[in-house]
Amino acid sequence: MPASNRMADLSWADVESRLASGAVVLVPVGAQEGHSTHLPLGTDTVIAEAVCDTLAQRLGGLVTPAVPFGYKSQIRTGGGHHWPGNIGLDGDLLIQLVRRILNDLIAKGATRIAVVNAHLENSWFITEACNLAVADHLDRSDLRIMAADWWAMLDGDDMVSVFDPPPDDISYEHAALVETSVMLHLAPDAVDMTKAPRHEFVQFPPYDIFPPPSDWITESGALAPVLNADAGKGRRIIELATSKLARAMQAEFGGSNP
Amino acid sequence: MPASNRMADLSWADVESRLASGAVVLVPVGAQEGHSTHLPLGTDTVIAEAVCDTLAQRLGGLVTPAVPFGYKSQIRTGGGHHWPGNIGLDGDLLIQLVRRILNDLIAKGATRIAVVNAHLENSWFITEACNLAVADHLDRSDLRIMAADWWAMLDGDDMVSVFDPPPDDISYEHAALVETSVMLHLAPDAVDMTKAPRHEFVQFPPYDIFPPPSDWITESGALAPVLNADAGKGRRIIELATSKLARAMQAEFGGSNP
Amino acid sequence: MPASNRMADLSWADVESRLASGAVVLVPVGAQEGHSTHLPLGTDTVIAEAVCDTLAQRLGGLVTPAVPFGYKSQIRTGGGHHWPGNIGLDGDLLIQLVRRILNDLIAKGATRIAVVNAHLENSWFITEACNLAVADHLDRSDLRIMAADWWAMLDGDDMVSVFDPPPDDISYEHAALVETSVMLHLAPDAVDMTKAPRHEFVQFPPYDIFPPPSDWITESGALAPVLNADAGKGRRIIELATSKLARAMQAEFGGSNP
Amino acid sequence: MPASNRMADLSWADVESRLASGAVVLVPVGAQEGHSTHLPLGTDTVIAEAVCDTLAQRLGGLVTPAVPFGYKSQIRTGGGHHWPGNIGLDGDLLIQLVRRILNDLIAKGATRIAVVNAHLENSWFITEACNLAVADHLDRSDLRIMAADWWAMLDGDDMVSVFDPPPDDISYEHAALVETSVMLHLAPDAVDMTKAPRHEFVQFPPYDIFPPPSDWITESGALAPVLNADAGKGRRIIELATSKLARAMQAEFGGSNP
Amino acid sequence: MPASNRMADLSWADVESRLASGAVVLVPVGAQEGHSTHLPLGTDTVIAEAVCDTLAQRLGGLVTPAVPFGYKSQIRTGGGHHWPGNIGLDGDLLIQLVRRILNDLIAKGATRIAVVNAHLENSWFITEACNLAVADHLDRSDLRIMAADWWAMLDGDDMVSVFDPPPDDISYEHAALVETSVMLHLAPDAVDMTKAPRHEFVQFPPYDIFPPPSDWITESGALAPVLNADAGKGRRIIELATSKLARAMQAEFGGSNP
Amino acid sequence: MPASNRMADLSWADVESRLASGAVVLVPVGAQEGHSTHLPLGTDTVIAEAVCDTLAQRLGGLVTPAVPFGYKSQIRTGGGHHWPGNIGLDGDLLIQLVRRILNDLIAKGATRIAVVNAHLENSWFITEACNLAVADHLDRSDLRIMAADWWAMLDGDDMVSVFDPPPDDISYEHAALVETSVMLHLAPDAVDMTKAPRHEFVQFPPYDIFPPPSDWITESGALAPVLNADAGKGRRIIELATSKLARAMQAEFGGSNP
Repeated sequence: MPASNRMADLSWADVESRLASGAVVLVPVGAQEGHSTHLPLGTDTVIAEAVCDTLAQRLGGLVTPAVPFGYKSQIRTGGGHHWPGNIGLDGDLLIQLVRRILNDLIAKGATRIAVVNAHLENSWFITEACNLAVADHLDRSDLRIMAADWWAMLDGDDMVSVFDPPPDDISYEHAALVETSVMLHLAPDAVDMTKAPRHEFVQFPPYDIFPPPSDWITESGALAPVLNADAGKGRRIIELATSKLARAMQAEFGGSNP
Repeated sequence: MPASNRMADLSWADVESRLASGAVVLVPVGAQEGHSTHLPLGTDTVIAEAVCDTLAQRLGGLVTPAVPFGYKSQIRTGGGHHWPGNIGLDGDLLIQLVRRILNDLIAKGATRIAVVNAHLENSWFITEACNLAVADHLDRSDLRIMAADWWAMLDGDDMVSVFDPPPDDISYEHAALVETSVMLHLAPDAVDMTKAPRHEFVQFPPYDIFPPPSDWITESGALAPVLNADAGKGRRIIELATSKLARAMQAEFGGSNP
Repeated sequence: MPASNRMADLSWADVESRLASGAVVLVPVGAQEGHSTHLPLGTDTVIAEAVCDTLAQRLGGLVTPAVPFGYKSQIRTGGGHHWPGNIGLDGDLLIQLVRRILNDLIAKGATRIAVVNAHLENSWFITEACNLAVADHLDRSDLRIMAADWWAMLDGDDMVSVFDPPPDDISYEHAALVETSVMLHLAPDAVDMTKAPRHEFVQFPPYDIFPPPSDWITESGALAPVLNADAGKGRRIIELATSKLARAMQAEFGGSNP
Repeated sequence: MPASNRMADLSWADVESRLASGAVVLVPVGAQEGHSTHLPLGTDTVIAEAVCDTLAQRLGGLVTPAVPFGYKSQIRTGGGHHWPGNIGLDGDLLIQLVRRILNDLIAKGATRIAVVNAHLENSWFITEACNLAVADHLDRSDLRIMAADWWAMLDGDDMVSVFDPPPDDISYEHAALVETSVMLHLAPDAVDMTKAPRHEFVQFPPYDIFPPPSDWITESGALAPVLNADAGKGRRIIELATSKLARAMQAEFGGSNP
Repeated sequence: MPASNRMADLSWADVESRLASGAVVLVPVGAQEGHSTHLPLGTDTVIAEAVCDTLAQRLGGLVTPAVPFGYKSQIRTGGGHHWPGNIGLDGDLLIQLVRRILNDLIAKGATRIAVVNAHLENSWFITEACNLAVADHLDRSDLRIMAADWWAMLDGDDMVSVFDPPPDDISYEHAALVETSVMLHLAPDAVDMTKAPRHEFVQFPPYDIFPPPSDWITESGALAPVLNADAGKGRRIIELATSKLARAMQAEFGGSNP
Repeated sequence: MPASNRMADLSWADVESRLASGAVVLVPVGAQEGHSTHLPLGTDTVIAEAVCDTLAQRLGGLVTPAVPFGYKSQIRTGGGHHWPGNIGLDGDLLIQLVRRILNDLIAKGATRIAVVNAHLENSWFITEACNLAVADHLDRSDLRIMAADWWAMLDGDDMVSVFDPPPDDISYEHAALVETSVMLHLAPDAVDMTKAPRHEFVQFPPYDIFPPPSDWITESGALAPVLNADAGKGRRIIELATSKLARAMQAEFGGSNP
């Protein structure tokens, strides 16, 4: 077996033999999005690729190039799209991009595909991409596409088992305790804790305003406290999510792992 | 003041004078979606319109015709798109429809617009519609668009104050305790409690599979128990949400209510 | 049989049994369009829905939620798109919306579908929607879609039998004698005859100018005289059109009426 | 003045000087559509170009290359889209094509543009193209776009003055008396009267059926009698329409004719 | 056999019999693009049509109406899109237009189609149109579409055999020696050699700049010397390319020429 | 200065300060495309990123995440789109993706942007993306976008200076001598010379056939000989191209390099 599971590192002949033996294909979807002053813009892409790499190793799978641009960052979930360096796609563009990746994988023989997402704002556009790809193949009964947000695999017990105290609300966790810990584990050189915000915290009303009011924007872009983040917690939480994903894929794609 | 606040019931001259006096414009977005065997397919549209009608009365607002078709129902949140009578839009079609409504309202002078949604699957496509409408008017600093899911206004205390016990998880509440109670209050003639499912309940894993596995589909389409629904609870919960929305609009749109 | 034939009022189980017994599905298409100062903006939607309700009752059919937004009002046929409260769709958006409704009905088992239009500007975009829906199902020989403008069912003799004198030209009848009479019959509370224009009348050259010249715009938006409108005439003319439509559907969809 | 008014025959420098002196730009829109067995598929393009050429000569105008493909031929107005050699555009494609031509003409300095149509099915898609082109230039108050169907310039008196008896109904005139006469005048070599249908005539109900019923299709594709067509009548009727169009353009575009 | 091979000049019945006997269908694609001060804007369309007419005569083929608008002229290959009279399509519009023509030809029974292009900027958009048309018919194994740029058939030996000296670089040949010679042969009345530029020549760096720098624009729009152009050379060079195309089509479409 | 110039590795604050000091933004565009049996599918992305990284270092620039999917591989230039692992975009999807990246960069303050392409089939779709992005900002006179194919910077003298003998034709160089040498320099671990084809070579006629004839497909996917490739030649040829690009950017974007 070649050292890499990333399709970009393999030749077509490598991919052909892997697909022929039933390899699951993993599609990481990230974002180019401001993640406070201490995390890199590519944070979500790093996480999505890392989760997929681990899954591919455990399941004998293949990983496509990551989708490195996600849906535009929203104020309440990602701090907003206005940060320098943010590159976000319109909804339909993301839909069509993921749909096309799925359809081209299917055309080349893949029947077990998992889209692994690390950017909250992507979720429903990925849902639509999967719905459209399935609708493009109504005559095919052998296709099974999974779409998962990596953090959604975690429940309250998982959070408590790693973080003390656990974050108040996972939906405010953008660029905060969980993501910072995970990045300290995955890409410590890309994290600068000296630039982590000290007191950042924001609570939003349960609705959106367009354009976003200026007082909904935090100074750094983080939505919740970063303090207490560490690499060990990051390692444990990402391992929990990835293990659950691996079990889910074995259950749903059964038999694809030799 | 004319008896109706619905723009479809008014002449253009009525609307002109209302807009001139700063009326908020409310856009109800519903769905045509199976809601178990005891609720009508138009449940979400009924609720969205009722919330908007009440808000318009309290705030001196106008209500556009409801968008009566929403995004395709998804298994984990709405029971699935396969039910006879379901009519669902592709994501981009819903985006473009809501965007166009917003842009035409803006073209006619509206500056305070609230999109009130009653179908969970619509939310992110409405988000994109609002983002695009704002991007279509970058030269306008006077526009303020709110987008709200009516149920999202409710917190745990609200649920406890009305339901005993409260539903386990609002995200499984499709065609269940809350919606049934609200419909018993709003449109009792359209509800047939003799056809309410007795033991329906489903728990989903935290990811999606496309196409949906057959064992993820409940017999009726409801996702959680309906028992104990009653009109009084429906009246109280919708009143709680609507009151919170009214206060939010007064805060965000300040001064538009004479 | 349930009291309502509107799909939004029925459960999916009701719709399932109706479709199984061969129910025709009726799709009313209206508009949100200024109709002078005495008629409501939703006039076309009211008429389309009323015609469909009657047809459904006579033919054992089902009625989808009305499409409440039509193509942008044009000066020569609808008074123009500039009136406050007008919400009009771009051509392709209307095409895609009607196409999607048709395709989703077909996916759920409908084979006899009639699109009933009450807004002149919609006609050719509905034509394209029907053409595309049929092209989406080239492998299906069992589909039959009718598209009808309700007023087009009327010939000169019909007009003379109801109106004395009959209107000069049906194409200038926007918000005028015929529509006002029909609305006095269908929705008298929404009509304010004290605000009917007295002397409104306009004659257009046989071509269009974009943007519309200001002297092509009437004060009220009506294109022809409203005087002499009454509910009885409205009842008779709409009954004539509806009866002809019912006969046409029986002829074209033969056997669908039990 | 160069011999030709067709922009395709001129150099950019010729066009520049013509536009600088206020030339009207004429955009002929035709079709590639079966016109019975005796007329060529390009009949509508021939007529649209001929009308534009004459108008350009009289008004000092320029003629763009004709749009040689129109909207798909419809049964009731054009005999149907199934004829070998028919090439028809989907509605949105025609809209975008005409919109782009208009926008590019405007970008190069044209402010007086007339779209002259010879294929009935094109009309509403041209309307939308003009609406969109104007909406693309909301900041421009100097633009004036005319859209005209050449035959719509003719009234009953015109028909009686040329044809005895006049055709029953202009809307059934596809490939019949009027078009055949005009083509005998404009392009006699392309007409083969020995192949003209003898007894062709069809009457349609006032609605559409999709896909078109086979008994709505005539043998030749003509919708009404061809007999009595002759070149002299063709010359007179096209001259009447063109003269009226010239006067309309002088009135609407006033002063553009040196 | 009718005198003309152009589908616009034939009736549907003529086309039907030609297609039934296996006629190749030729689709000329040109442009409306500034070609210096001495050549007409329609130069590319004239050439594409002429090549197709000759091929149709030799191969027993049919010629569709030319696509008279191409992709926007680019500075380095066509002199730029800014010239008065230029009408250029956006890339996707050209793709969809050619795709639609191909699909409609296929729907009417054509299986051997050749797209003959005379405007360099069109090539890759035609490629995509052909790819999409083939993807629209994955179930058809009998289709064969050729796409050829006429000048690409010529090699260095061909150029040397006609021009002495041959042009330095075919990619700078816009409105220069080759095209001028060909137009002097095909359409001498449309060429005004008194307006040919004397010393025009430009050399571009091997990359693009958007918007185009003003010093990349030549005075006339020609990119290379025109001197020494003559009709005889034009006749010989176009004959060489056309003959090679005819042989290529016989080889690729074998047996379609009776 | 941070160690990395890749925007995905930087925080928004880093990007903000770089853009404020006039950094050029480089957009690498690659492909996921079969490159024979000895090179990885991501070859073009590796090269595009490497060129951009070097340019960013020399010019003080920023590099966006690479576009890792290009236009569908074509037979004559890339060996075809059918290879397992190929993921290719439709033309308009690539256009819209690059356009969006450009527009979002411009929205965040970038005025000097260079798109660096390593996949031949991408070029014209990038051209259109740049044209559309400029058309989206007609009111901005400060924008300058360069688009360059890295290999196009090389002329015959460059090739001769590195390769002996030089490749016959750069357009057949897919997965052959030049790319293999460059990859041996940039990513030697991803190259497996034991799987390099020995005698692969193909000559195409000067036109396309759709779908591609089976005898136009080489066994490995390479289009020309790989023999004699080595890392030193790769280093020299990529350095030549990159140095020329750096000089071009300094000339075109003058002053942006501190």
